[in-house]
Amino acid sequence: MSRTVWTSGTTQLAEAETSSAPRTEAVMVEIRRRITGRALTGGEKLPSIRRLAGDLKVSPSTVVEAYERLVAEGLVRARPGSGFYVAGSLPVVALREVAPKLDRAIDPLWVSRQSLDAGADMLRPGCGWLPADWMPNAAIRRSLRALARAEDGILSDYGGTRGSLALRGHLARQFAAEGIEAGADQILLTPSGSRAMDLLCRFLLKPGDTVLVDDPCYFNFQALLRAHQIRIVSVPYTPTGPDIERFGQVLAAERPRLYITNAALHNPTGATLSPRTAHQVLTLAAAHDLTIVEDEIFAEFEPEPSPRLAALDGLARVIRVGSFSKTLSASARCGYIVARPEWIEGLVDLQVATNFGGPSPIAAELVFGTLSDGSYRKHLADLRTRLARRRREMLAELGKLGITPWTLPRGGFCLWCRLPDGRDAAAVAQAALRERVVLAPGNVFSVTQSAGDLMRFNVAQMDGEVLRVLGNALR
Amino acid sequence: MSRTVWTSGTTQLAEAETSSAPRTEAVMVEIRRRITGRALTGGEKLPSIRRLAGDLKVSPSTVVEAYERLVAEGLVRARPGSGFYVAGSLPVVALREVAPKLDRAIDPLWVSRQSLDAGADMLRPGCGWLPADWMPNAAIRRSLRALARAEDGILSDYGGTRGSLALRGHLARQFAAEGIEAGADQILLTPSGSRAMDLLCRFLLKPGDTVLVDDPCYFNFQALLRAHQIRIVSVPYTPTGPDIERFGQVLAAERPRLYITNAALHNPTGATLSPRTAHQVLTLAAAHDLTIVEDEIFAEFEPEPSPRLAALDGLARVIRVGSFSKTLSASARCGYIVARPEWIEGLVDLQVATNFGGPSPIAAELVFGTLSDGSYRKHLADLRTRLARRRREMLAELGKLGITPWTLPRGGFCLWCRLPDGRDAAAVAQAALRERVVLAPGNVFSVTQSAGDLMRFNVAQMDGEVLRVLGNALR
Repeated sequence: MSRTVWTSGTTQLAEAETSSAPRTEAVMVEIRRRITGRALTGGEKLPSIRRLAGDLKVSPSTVVEAYERLVAEGLVRARPGSGFYVAGSLPVVALREVAPKLDRAIDPLWVSRQSLDAGADMLRPGCGWLPADWMPNAAIRRSLRALARAEDGILSDYGGTRGSLALRGHLARQFAAEGIEAGADQILLTPSGSRAMDLLCRFLLKPGDTVLVDDPCYFNFQALLRAHQIRIVSVPYTPTGPDIERFGQVLAAERPRLYITNAALHNPTGATLSPRTAHQVLTLAAAHDLTIVEDEIFAEFEPEPSPRLAALDGLARVIRVGSFSKTLSASARCGYIVARPEWIEGLVDLQVATNFGGPSPIAAELVFGTLSDGSYRKHLADLRTRLARRRREMLAELGKLGITPWTLPRGGFCLWCRLPDGRDAAAVAQAALRERVVLAPGNVFSVTQSAGDLMRFNVAQMDGEVLRVLGNALR
Repeated sequence: MSRTVWTSGTTQLAEAETSSAPRTEAVMVEIRRRITGRALTGGEKLPSIRRLAGDLKVSPSTVVEAYERLVAEGLVRARPGSGFYVAGSLPVVALREVAPKLDRAIDPLWVSRQSLDAGADMLRPGCGWLPADWMPNAAIRRSLRALARAEDGILSDYGGTRGSLALRGHLARQFAAEGIEAGADQILLTPSGSRAMDLLCRFLLKPGDTVLVDDPCYFNFQALLRAHQIRIVSVPYTPTGPDIERFGQVLAAERPRLYITNAALHNPTGATLSPRTAHQVLTLAAAHDLTIVEDEIFAEFEPEPSPRLAALDGLARVIRVGSFSKTLSASARCGYIVARPEWIEGLVDLQVATNFGGPSPIAAELVFGTLSDGSYRKHLADLRTRLARRRREMLAELGKLGITPWTLPRGGFCLWCRLPDGRDAAAVAQAALRERVVLAPGNVFSVTQSAGDLMRFNVAQMDGEVLRVLGNALR
C-alpha cells in the first residue's frame, strides 16, 4: 500500500511503504498524463486492467489499486460490471489559495487574516507564532507513529465531553505544581485558546454587556468581543500590569462584567504582572464582583513562573485559559479552560451544543504524547535560550533603525517597540505589505487607538530581509 | 526512544521502537513503584543515576531517559546541578471519568451527554455514530504513518483560514460530481458539522430570530438554537420530506429567517426528501426569502444520491453543511460549510475571531489521506451492505417486542420506531439507563413533544443484551 505525503500546495510521493507503491503511483501518473493530455477525455473508458497491466509491465492488482485511488481522487469513476471511466464533467476547481486582500482596512482581524493566509513567499514578523522549524517536530512525529498503533476508539470515536483524560491529568499535575488545585474534572479541553474565550463569552455574557481589556491587548480579544456584540472598555497596561488606579476607576464607573487579560507574558507588550499589582487586581475585582479570564498562552516561555491570578484566587472568580499552540503545535488545535466545577459543567453543555465536543481526540492524544516525550522539557529550555539571544540581537538591529523597546520582556518572541519620529505604524505596515512582509501595527492592539507609533515584532520571524523592508518602509 | 500507546483510561507499553525502550520503561516502573509504595516520598531525592544504573544493571543513559520521562509526567522534578527529586506535593487528581448524572432531566442534550460520557461498560443504541470497529481504522493508521513524514508546517503551523486545500479540492470535485459548482474557495472547513451550524447561526441570526426545523429533528439543532436564544418553530416531517402544506403556512405565519434540515437521510427518521417536495420547498423559500441550511451528515450512507436542495438551488439561498464523523472518523473533528463566496468570506472572519481558524490542520490532512486511500470507497460500499443487513435483522428483532418502524430507511443506521401500546419512551429510556443502556427517546427530537411513544434505534450499536434490556424496560 503506498501513501503520499502532503506539502502545502503540492503532492509528492513519499518513500514507499512496500515495494509495490512506486508502481501504483507510476500507473496513476500515466493515466493522469493521458487525461491532461486529452488522450483520454471525459466519459471515455480507461484501458482494461489486463491490457494496461501488460502494456506497463505491472501486475493487474497494481492497476486495480491505481484505478481505485484515481476514483478516490475523483478523476475516474467506476461503473460496476462495466469498468473504469474518466469522470464525466471535470470540475473547474480553483486549486489555489485565496490571496489575502492587500487593501483591506487595518482592523483587529487584519493581522490574523494577513498572517494566516500569507503566501509561502511572504515574511511574517507581525504574526504571533514561531516558525515551523522551531517546533518539536521530531517528538510530534514520534507521537504520530505511536498513535498509528492506538486502539480503534482513539482513532474514530467522538471521545468524552471534557476531552482526553490523559491530557487533563497532565494539566492537573502541572497546575498543582503551580499551586492551583484543580482536578481533571475541572478542566475542559477546547479546540483552541481562542475557542475557550469564545465559549466563556457565550457562557458569561449577553449582547450589550461591558468587558474590560488591557490597552494594548491581543487584537483577537477585540475581534471576539465585537462578534459577541460586547461593549469594550480598556485600562492602560504598564510594565507591571494594568494601571491600578485607572483599573479601580473603570470598575466603579463602567461596571464591567468581565476582565480579560494575559498571565505570564502580556501580549503585545511582553510585560509581566507584579505580585503587588496582582493582589490589587484581585482585591478590586472582589469589591466590584468582577470575573477575570486569565489567558496564559505564552506561559511556557517564562524563565521563572510569575504571579498567577488563578493561584492567588483559588479559581473563585478567576478562569484560566491556555493552549499548546505557541510551543508545541498550532496544528493540533487544542486549548483548555480551568474553572469552578459548576461552570465547567455548564460549559460542557455549551460545547456539546455548539461543537458536539471539544478538540480532535486524536490531536489531543498527539499533544499528550508530545508533552510526555522526554525531549519536550529540553525543547522548552532550548526555546527560551534561543529566544533570549534573538531578542537581544533584534533589539540591536531595530535600534539601528531608531526603533526602541517599550519594555524589555523576560521571555517570549514579542518586542513592543516605538517607531522613530512618531511614524505612523499603519502606513509602515501597508508599505511593508507591498514588499511581502506582514507587520503588526500598534493600533490593531489598541482599543483607544493610542498606539499609532508602536509596533509588535516577532523576533523569531525576523531576518535581514525583514529589516531591509522595514528600513525602506520607514524611509 | 520508546513510546506509549494510549487506551481510553489506562496506559500500556507498546512494542518498543528500539531495543532500549523496555529497559527505560522498567526503570520508570521501578521508580513509580517506590513512590506509590512510599519508599520514596514527596521532596525526597531519587537515587543517583550511576547508582541506580548499577543496581538495575542498565546503562546510565537509560536511567537519564527514564528520569526525564518521569519529569515530563510530573512525578519527578529536576533541580539543575543537584539531581532528581520526587515531586513535592503530589496533587490529589481525580483521574476518573466524570460519571454522567443518571437523574438528569431528559432534554435535547440528554442523549448527547449520556452517549459521549458513557462508561466502557455501557451500551449505546441511542447514540448517533457507528462502533469504532466499523470505521476505516486501517486507512487511518496508514494516513497517520504518512503524516509522521509530512513537512514541518503541516505538523505545527496554524494553516490557512479556510483549512486544508487538499481536502477542500477533494470536496469540490465530489460536489461537482453531484452538480454543485463550488470552488475550493467556497468551502470553509470547520471543527465539526455542529460547529458549522454554530457559525452559521452566529453569522445569520440574532437573538429572538425565528428558525424553522423539522419535527422530529436532530436534537442538537434544538440545543444549538436555544444556546443562540432563537425562537424555534417546526413543521411535521413526512416520509418524503416536510409536510409541504404546513411548511407554506409556517413560512407565511411565522416568517422564519432560516430553515435547518437534513439532506440524504433525515435524522431521526431515516426518511428521504422526494424530488417533488424538494422543488416545492425551494419555491416556497424563494417566495418568503427563506435561507436554508442543508445538513448532509449521513449522505455517505445513501445507496444512490437523493435530491439535494443545494444542487437544485445552485447555492443561492441554500447552504450546505457536512462532516466526516459518521463514516470516516469522529475523532478527527472536521466538518465543512459550502455557501456563497461573500458569505464564506464573512464566516472566515467569524471563525478567526472565535477559534483562530478551523479544524486541526493535522486532522484535516488525516481526513484527506483516508478519503484518498484506495480502500475508502470499498469501506463505504461494505458499510452500506452491512447496515442494510443489520437494519433487516433488527427490524425483525424489534418486531418481536411489538416495536414497529415509522418508515423503512434507504440507508444508514437509524430506525425511527413506535413502541407498543403507546408506551412512554422517556420512561423506557430511564429504565434502560439503570441497566447501563443509553436509548434515544422520541421527545428529545420533537419540538412539539409529540413523539412520546417513538424512539430512535442505532442498529449498529444493538445486540442481544440491548434487546434483553429493552424487553425488560418495556415490561
